[in-house]
Amino acid sequence: MNAYAQKSKDELNGQLTALLSEYEVFKNEGHSLDISRGKPCKEQLDLSVGMMDTLSSKSSLNAQNGFDCRNYGIIDGIEEAKELFSQLFDVAKSEIVIGGNSSLGMMYDAMIRAILFGVSEDAKPWGEQGEVKFVCPSPGYDRHFHLCEELGIKMIPVGMDENGPDMDAVRKIVESDESVKGMWCVPKFSNPTGVVYSDEVVRAIAALKPAAKDFRVFWDNAYAVHDLYERVELLSLLDECKKAGNADMVYMFGSTSKVSFAGSGIAILAASEANIAHAKSHMKFQTIGSDKLNQLRHVRFFKNTDGVYAHMKKHAQVIGTKFDIVDDILTERVGKSELAEWIKPKGGYFISLDVKYGSAKKVVGMMKDAGIMITPAGVTFPYGDDPRDSNIRIAPTFTGNDALSLAMKTLCLCINIVSIEDALKGK
Amino acid sequence: MNAYAQKSKDELNGQLTALLSEYEVFKNEGHSLDISRGKPCKEQLDLSVGMMDTLSSKSSLNAQNGFDCRNYGIIDGIEEAKELFSQLFDVAKSEIVIGGNSSLGMMYDAMIRAILFGVSEDAKPWGEQGEVKFVCPSPGYDRHFHLCEELGIKMIPVGMDENGPDMDAVRKIVESDESVKGMWCVPKFSNPTGVVYSDEVVRAIAALKPAAKDFRVFWDNAYAVHDLYERVELLSLLDECKKAGNADMVYMFGSTSKVSFAGSGIAILAASEANIAHAKSHMKFQTIGSDKLNQLRHVRFFKNTDGVYAHMKKHAQVIGTKFDIVDDILTERVGKSELAEWIKPKGGYFISLDVKYGSAKKVVGMMKDAGIMITPAGVTFPYGDDPRDSNIRIAPTFTGNDALSLAMKTLCLCINIVSIEDALKGK
Repeated sequence: MNAYAQKSKDELNGQLTALLSEYEVFKNEGHSLDISRGKPCKEQLDLSVGMMDTLSSKSSLNAQNGFDCRNYGIIDGIEEAKELFSQLFDVAKSEIVIGGNSSLGMMYDAMIRAILFGVSEDAKPWGEQGEVKFVCPSPGYDRHFHLCEELGIKMIPVGMDENGPDMDAVRKIVESDESVKGMWCVPKFSNPTGVVYSDEVVRAIAALKPAAKDFRVFWDNAYAVHDLYERVELLSLLDECKKAGNADMVYMFGSTSKVSFAGSGIAILAASEANIAHAKSHMKFQTIGSDKLNQLRHVRFFKNTDGVYAHMKKHAQVIGTKFDIVDDILTERVGKSELAEWIKPKGGYFISLDVKYGSAKKVVGMMKDAGIMITPAGVTFPYGDDPRDSNIRIAPTFTGNDALSLAMKTLCLCINIVSIEDALKGK
Repeated sequence: MNAYAQKSKDELNGQLTALLSEYEVFKNEGHSLDISRGKPCKEQLDLSVGMMDTLSSKSSLNAQNGFDCRNYGIIDGIEEAKELFSQLFDVAKSEIVIGGNSSLGMMYDAMIRAILFGVSEDAKPWGEQGEVKFVCPSPGYDRHFHLCEELGIKMIPVGMDENGPDMDAVRKIVESDESVKGMWCVPKFSNPTGVVYSDEVVRAIAALKPAAKDFRVFWDNAYAVHDLYERVELLSLLDECKKAGNADMVYMFGSTSKVSFAGSGIAILAASEANIAHAKSHMKFQTIGSDKLNQLRHVRFFKNTDGVYAHMKKHAQVIGTKFDIVDDILTERVGKSELAEWIKPKGGYFISLDVKYGSAKKVVGMMKDAGIMITPAGVTFPYGDDPRDSNIRIAPTFTGNDALSLAMKTLCLCINIVSIEDALKGK
């Protein structure tokens, strides 16, 4: 029951007039703020600036095995980079391919291979099997959903709670329909809800018995080391899949985009040796190998997992402050009055806000009109369709703290205005 | 008429015994030489080592327009990199997309887009049009041919002479068959023959009237600035296509892989604005953008086209010496005796040798047995099938000068042995 539900019409009208005039003043000030995307801010990028000095004309540019990293070759990455990632992602070196600067690109490539060649030597290409469907826990990552749309893959939304996807729903869909070929997951600090998949959920995914033999979980572990406070453990899906006799069922992805530099990080694909061998058997027609100097740069800068963890603590300080700003303002201005709900995540890049059903689009529209870039309402759902029109994704990292405060206060202002308008309409 | 044709059997047998024993001695010495791939040597890579110092923690890491190159964004590349490439490749900035470190990857992506989405908004995907064929001037680049095989594209070989592809043959095929959707070209210092397409050939390509409306020339200008002596001019196919009313018929590719670092260069796609807009409309689902720090590194190191040309003169010195070694040894040991033919190219990375019909595989097999990695015979033709079994590709750049001499002398030894054996058989 929100704070406006029991107020008199006069009271509501009075408050609305005051808030609308506040909104108009803000709007006329001509702001340009951005809380739309999970981009690191300058302060975060500066944390890795030392990486620019790890290689110079005076450095050895050879990998540990003596290979000249400047030259062509080594399609799956230099050994020392594979070593670092194998520890960070809890997989063997033989279960890794290192790619370019974009894990999204690696997901795209994995999709393309599945569509054109099939997921294994003896599998039929997805593209020759009629309709292909993906399970999409929602709200989720808009770029995953857009990629499905681009490739003509039908999306089936399933709900998310604080432990991850609704596994009863997932099981039912995956195990009954042979045209369901995949499932998107952001298992740790999920985009946008910030949820970490529970051990139970990870094990339930590993134990799936898909109707389609060529079913693959696309496990986008984008925030594997992006803890804000103490380290939150996520079970290794690959390990669990092996235990369940499903070793080939998962493709895991990760990157240093939000560890080092967003545009110049390194991305990885991790999977069973059979899956890696199959991927490489096709990748060799596409590239001679990714940028090994950038791999070397990363390894020399971070040195080892401890180096990465220590580095991520610095990110956590910057991001933690921003999450606090968001949480404090929300609590004060819409939480106490029960106008919105959210979970304050323990890591990741997003805070996912649920406003009253039917009002997210309106709130986001008002934000946009007031010069604040915010993720369009609905895009965290397949086909941009939030059935409740309730979810708003907040990406607090990119903007400065003062601007973030201002944007959040304006967001709360908009939520209050829309809530009063609803109350006046008796909604 | 080669030197062995008129000798007596005894004479031939005597020479063969001597050469075979020379070959056996070499073989038993356990050499490991490599003239198989167009890889730059260490000395060439060292020419660009200063690029490692152009960015450091003390540098501005912003593009000219103030954009922080470390962050996400700018899908088609920073302005100053587009400026440099627009001058090098004779196209407008609006006709360029800058990619990652691999032009092969950009060709693969362009192929995938054509297959899955079609080459334009109103075109049918190649993948939905039954058999797709490509014209493949041969000998040509093995990776182009392998990519076609990988994607199930049928290859139609056409001949090459010193001016480029046999345009009468090309015209006939392209203008009569709607399933012919593309054509591979390496227009300058062609891989492997070293030929530069004449103005007449470029204009003839631009004037093609393909039966398929969605026909595209894949113009891999890999050696655009890789002249060994004076600069050899190549007509701009895009310009000629515009004049012929065929602006959308060409995708041009290039990279700095053999300018800066083979594994850490930057690649480009250049095409009409309509083609670029179409490419970007799909690329946005695949990536947020390529490595902009590496773009910045390149621009700060080379500064402008003059910087690139001056740099390429240094490469030319290194490569020129190697081409001389190859040419001298071939002239002395197989040329005078008319056992092989080749053109000494004015740039590029390869020397293409034609030995007596039916003997390339045998010669290459002997090289391999003697510990010398050389491009397998046939791979410069579609499906690895050199109908004359005559072409041998020599890639002299990677190996040291002494090793190159040794490899070339051994190659000549093998050619002599095979030629005598043939003469003895009356071939």
